[in-house]
Amino acid sequence: MSTITLLTDFGLEDAWVGMMKGVILGINSEARIVDITHQIPPQDTAAAAWMIAAAYPYFPGGSVHVVVVDPGVGSDRNIICAALDGHIFLAPDNGVLSSVLKPGINTGDIRIVKNQDFFLDSISNTFHGRDIFAPVGAHLSMSPDISAVGPTVEFETLVYMDLPRPRLTSNGDLLGAVILIDRFGNIITNIDRNLFEAHRAANTDCRPEITLGNHRIPGLSNSYSQADKGQTLALFGSMGYLEIAVYCGNAGRELGISRGDRVKVSGH
Amino acid sequence: MSTITLLTDFGLEDAWVGMMKGVILGINSEARIVDITHQIPPQDTAAAAWMIAAAYPYFPGGSVHVVVVDPGVGSDRNIICAALDGHIFLAPDNGVLSSVLKPGINTGDIRIVKNQDFFLDSISNTFHGRDIFAPVGAHLSMSPDISAVGPTVEFETLVYMDLPRPRLTSNGDLLGAVILIDRFGNIITNIDRNLFEAHRAANTDCRPEITLGNHRIPGLSNSYSQADKGQTLALFGSMGYLEIAVYCGNAGRELGISRGDRVKVSGH
Amino acid sequence: MSTITLLTDFGLEDAWVGMMKGVILGINSEARIVDITHQIPPQDTAAAAWMIAAAYPYFPGGSVHVVVVDPGVGSDRNIICAALDGHIFLAPDNGVLSSVLKPGINTGDIRIVKNQDFFLDSISNTFHGRDIFAPVGAHLSMSPDISAVGPTVEFETLVYMDLPRPRLTSNGDLLGAVILIDRFGNIITNIDRNLFEAHRAANTDCRPEITLGNHRIPGLSNSYSQADKGQTLALFGSMGYLEIAVYCGNAGRELGISRGDRVKVSGH
Repeated sequence: MSTITLLTDFGLEDAWVGMMKGVILGINSEARIVDITHQIPPQDTAAAAWMIAAAYPYFPGGSVHVVVVDPGVGSDRNIICAALDGHIFLAPDNGVLSSVLKPGINTGDIRIVKNQDFFLDSISNTFHGRDIFAPVGAHLSMSPDISAVGPTVEFETLVYMDLPRPRLTSNGDLLGAVILIDRFGNIITNIDRNLFEAHRAANTDCRPEITLGNHRIPGLSNSYSQADKGQTLALFGSMGYLEIAVYCGNAGRELGISRGDRVKVSGH
Repeated sequence: MSTITLLTDFGLEDAWVGMMKGVILGINSEARIVDITHQIPPQDTAAAAWMIAAAYPYFPGGSVHVVVVDPGVGSDRNIICAALDGHIFLAPDNGVLSSVLKPGINTGDIRIVKNQDFFLDSISNTFHGRDIFAPVGAHLSMSPDISAVGPTVEFETLVYMDLPRPRLTSNGDLLGAVILIDRFGNIITNIDRNLFEAHRAANTDCRPEITLGNHRIPGLSNSYSQADKGQTLALFGSMGYLEIAVYCGNAGRELGISRGDRVKVSGH
Repeated sequence: MSTITLLTDFGLEDAWVGMMKGVILGINSEARIVDITHQIPPQDTAAAAWMIAAAYPYFPGGSVHVVVVDPGVGSDRNIICAALDGHIFLAPDNGVLSSVLKPGINTGDIRIVKNQDFFLDSISNTFHGRDIFAPVGAHLSMSPDISAVGPTVEFETLVYMDLPRPRLTSNGDLLGAVILIDRFGNIITNIDRNLFEAHRAANTDCRPEITLGNHRIPGLSNSYSQADKGQTLALFGSMGYLEIAVYCGNAGRELGISRGDRVKVSGH
């Protein structure tokens, strides 16, 4: 029983996602199809890149992850398939896998999807999610040999998205950025625990102070409920990143913060 | 392994869809339930009619399609079941299947759902989706003989929805209407490719010009990405209809277009 | 084939629900996972309490119902598991099961979830839905012996939510409250049919008059469609409660009613 996940910007108002599932079940009636989300803002490949990287490790090994945020549909952009870390990824070559493929660490076996035997007979120029991604994903869920989909491609030739990465400033501060704001208004940054702790280890004389817009949050909490209702706190969240939250409130809205805003962890 | 699709206006905020699925799984624990969409605007049978017609061909033969947009629930309106094109449809007799049943071409075997053996024991007057459609659909997914649900009915006696159909004007223009605007803001018209091409064949002396509100779009593109960002284009979309889009934008919003607005393809 | 339902306030914009499903399928690849809803307003345990009580009876016996509306995540609040009425419930001990567990009638076998063998190896302080609820639910879907999850707890020691209950006033009126407003704007009260009919039996000399805000609705209808379009009516709805609706309209919006507002059924 194989799992196929779907991560798209197709929304749930229209029939697009349903059509993809129909195509998949027509090929592999045993497929377990799981929606990661379909509410990526239209064409927002960066949001999708963060989301797939955070979600895939929670799925069983052998899962096929189909990521379709694809503003270049119908152009000559490639579709790529990567086998990595025991999972299979299928996505347009537009950088949406930039946080999964790790240059210098693990980029896996990457293929350009060329084998039209796996495509629907009739291919539109507007909806490869249904006409290519769904049937190729369904075939891979039955037979996970990705060499069947097309020839190898070197990681270096892929489109790479320059996702914001945290950096150290000259005076020792750790500078990151807001990458996502979730349904609860929790503000998720790109500073992961390893980086944060390494920075702490180099600044042992004080507790960290986190600055976001005009807001300063002293120290780190362990859980949302450690604060009083309405209080702002910083903690490591469920995606593994430093997060700023308002307990029983909506931090994004209340602090007036948007994606891309800077966050600073003070060093001394 | 049989597939049941659900297309409703129940939304995802409440437990209505979950209840339907619970009823289905209680009868056929092997059913594959797929949501086409539950976000049809409340009581908008026309939107549902376009959506089911576009989506069902992508599902495996033998699928049972349960369409519940049902403002007449609890009245004496009938529930109908149609076997057509290798698929089974279950819907209120309110015209919501008017774009699936094709008078003069194929109206299939149509039944009035009468056999209460398939219903839940207790039937509310407000939620036949749960009490009738779900259990009847579950039974049909196990045993696709629709004669079991009730007697034959003639197509001519059904409620028929007068969906807007394109027409030729006296000066040779092809006049259609906007039937849906999707999540991306793509404006979907009721002009299909066959009709468009037949009209072109009769007007060989020029490239087509498409007029929508105050906007004129010269010629047809092959894909969204053929335009520059922000540019308006016309193309055949994934539902098989002429579509007006703004590349990486929201055409519906930016052009100020609503459902029902006219679209014109010039002749000459 | 076992069914696991999910009822949360996680929304569908983020990957949270997908992650939970990934964890479940990694443990029980045969699980049938059904979403009841994920759009409970953030932290609204009362809405979740009404919803789970209304929905669970429509699922097959043996279903595992995972309810995660959990503002206390990461605090010392307990997680409880109850076997009741042939179903299994898993929820934080914050009162969210207060309309399922019925003191004096049936509180079932209740356990505190303690057995960490069932948890993910690494437990965050922010997302027990993924790290505890999902894996424990998956195990229970394979082996429904809830004694494995932890020791018995007495109902009396649980956190109980004081959900609004209808009451008789001194002059014989039945006084209830609005508990939910659904997608259609139907206003759902906490007055169930038994209570309503008992009240009627004691007031046989007149038809009931229902008062909500400034609106008076004389008598009860059998179905939405019994009224004219735009007319306000009262009826028993699909959750089994007295409901006020506007036929083909949105009662909540048009009547200016909010959750918690009072509703009165006159007695004489």
